[in-house]
Amino acid sequence: MSEAFVTLVTNDGYALGALVLAKSLRDVNTTRKIAVLITNEVSEPTRNRLREAFDVVSLVNELNTHDAANLALLGRPELGVTLTKIYAWKLTQFTKCVFLDADTLVVQNVDELFDRPEIAAAPDVGWPDCFNSGVFVFVPSAATFEKLAEHAVSTGSFDGGDQGLLNTFFDYWPTAGPEHRLSFLYNMNANQSYSYKPAFQKYGHLVKIIHFIGQFKPWHWARTSSGRVYAQTQEAPTHSEFHVQQWWNVFDRHYSTSAPPVSLAALPIG
Amino acid sequence: MSEAFVTLVTNDGYALGALVLAKSLRDVNTTRKIAVLITNEVSEPTRNRLREAFDVVSLVNELNTHDAANLALLGRPELGVTLTKIYAWKLTQFTKCVFLDADTLVVQNVDELFDRPEIAAAPDVGWPDCFNSGVFVFVPSAATFEKLAEHAVSTGSFDGGDQGLLNTFFDYWPTAGPEHRLSFLYNMNANQSYSYKPAFQKYGHLVKIIHFIGQFKPWHWARTSSGRVYAQTQEAPTHSEFHVQQWWNVFDRHYSTSAPPVSLAALPIG
Ligand SMILES: O=c1ccn([C@@H]2O[C@H](COP(=O)(O)OP(=O)(O)O)[C@@H](O)[C@H]2O)c(=O)[nH]1
Ligand SMILES: O=c1ccn([C@@H]2O[C@H](COP(=O)(O)OP(=O)(O)O)[C@@H](O)[C@H]2O)c(=O)[nH]1
Ligand SMILES: [Mn+2]
Ligand SMILES: [Mn+2]
Repeated sequence: MSEAFVTLVTNDGYALGALVLAKSLRDVNTTRKIAVLITNEVSEPTRNRLREAFDVVSLVNELNTHDAANLALLGRPELGVTLTKIYAWKLTQFTKCVFLDADTLVVQNVDELFDRPEIAAAPDVGWPDCFNSGVFVFVPSAATFEKLAEHAVSTGSFDGGDQGLLNTFFDYWPTAGPEHRLSFLYNMNANQSYSYKPAFQKYGHLVKIIHFIGQFKPWHWARTSSGRVYAQTQEAPTHSEFHVQQWWNVFDRHYSTSAPPVSLAALPIG
Repeated sequence: MSEAFVTLVTNDGYALGALVLAKSLRDVNTTRKIAVLITNEVSEPTRNRLREAFDVVSLVNELNTHDAANLALLGRPELGVTLTKIYAWKLTQFTKCVFLDADTLVVQNVDELFDRPEIAAAPDVGWPDCFNSGVFVFVPSAATFEKLAEHAVSTGSFDGGDQGLLNTFFDYWPTAGPEHRLSFLYNMNANQSYSYKPAFQKYGHLVKIIHFIGQFKPWHWARTSSGRVYAQTQEAPTHSEFHVQQWWNVFDRHYSTSAPPVSLAALPIG
């Protein structure tokens, strides 16, 4: 029985997020493996960095596989990155996995998540009858992968991303038992400290996973020479500075004395 | 066996909301009674209007009752309006009730809510481990009222409002079975069409109850001579114009040929 945390990196931009995520999981002493799915566009130097931080680096190349569902998907190139996430179900060397977006940060041990069934996820604050697909428990299975791929072709994604696809596939989630519902503490949107401040003040110290939802990620923030973060633009949807600083603290603990693991200047927004 | 929808009005400002809410419930042909709790500050002309629209108008006067819990509450005047909501549990002439904030609008019949147990509510989008206390199913009971009042004294409300109080009292809600969890369709924040547009586009036509959360209510919007709403101030947290118009459409259907049921000019914001 082998279990793993899994993330996804389709370009160098998200690699920095994945590296910090992996370090954050080590920092909280997870006993599980850590895996990353990558695609062709990830550069060789970045792959080397990922190999240092992850137990498993798995190249997924949807366009060259030979199963029927994938062939059909060739006709839907716009589903792109969305579909890459479903390749996580192909990691059948693991009996259970927890998917974590590359823009998440683990701040307390969350190994208890492996006690949950597929699909277990937290509500999306935009529309809480949907789950947020940045953190979810799943069971790798070639059969489920095929069904997900077929679903992508037949139904598509109502939001153009993986969240729309996964929510219509796992459509039993909104009325499923509490074991399928993760506390918001496992997927707290870093904007959220603003939306209902008293709840953040009461429960914020219990947060286990911070999720930096939106185009503007922690690695896009500038820092002073002393390492304090500041937002580079006023217009950016602002995560709480407190949480962004937490992300950089993990970065500094593991990468401060080495060169940046990927060139920050080269990172595109969005 | 008698069941009712219940709302609360502690001043003339919210009375307009309650009147439109009551009319919206009649419009969707509810078979249940409609009750409103009022306090002393509600003026006599407004009470008359409420008596026309509601089956039950119940004056609650927390400061003159004689039970022990209420005496203790006298020492916590700051809990004010918050505590008034818990008087709903004293409506023991009903076997089950659905509480609706005065700033909600029912757009489809929701009588099926009476099949739910206490406490049934929808997640709060600010912190979805909490339920939003603008719409909830409850069972009137003098004993529960006393316990709620004691809880208010001993624990208080972490957000200063009824939502903080009710969430720590019904603290089993986040992990309770699906029968305790209402779909977001029963308590959709009218800001929400902006936060996750694709979900609103997919599910918005199924919405049954709209909730105008925040200081700026539909009755604070200005209208053109043709009846179209427009926001009076740029700074106001903006509900979707579409939903505010829906609220005014109900208003117009029932009150357009009569004088305004309460003076709009006199309504304070907040
Ligand atoms: O160009 C992309 C976009 C997304 N992702 C992966 O897909 C996840 C979901 O995207 P994102 O986190 O940006 O979406 P959000 O959480 O902001 O909605 C990311 O965390 C990455 O793991 C990626 O590898 N490349
Ligand atoms: O001064 C007040 C404030 C609130 N309320 C009642 O308490 C509910 C909750 O307040 P509100 O809806 O303003 O809170 P929000 O939903 O914006 O958080 C209202 O809908 C009314 O029913 C009231 O009667 N008088
Ligand atoms: Mn993300
Ligand atoms: Mn309200």
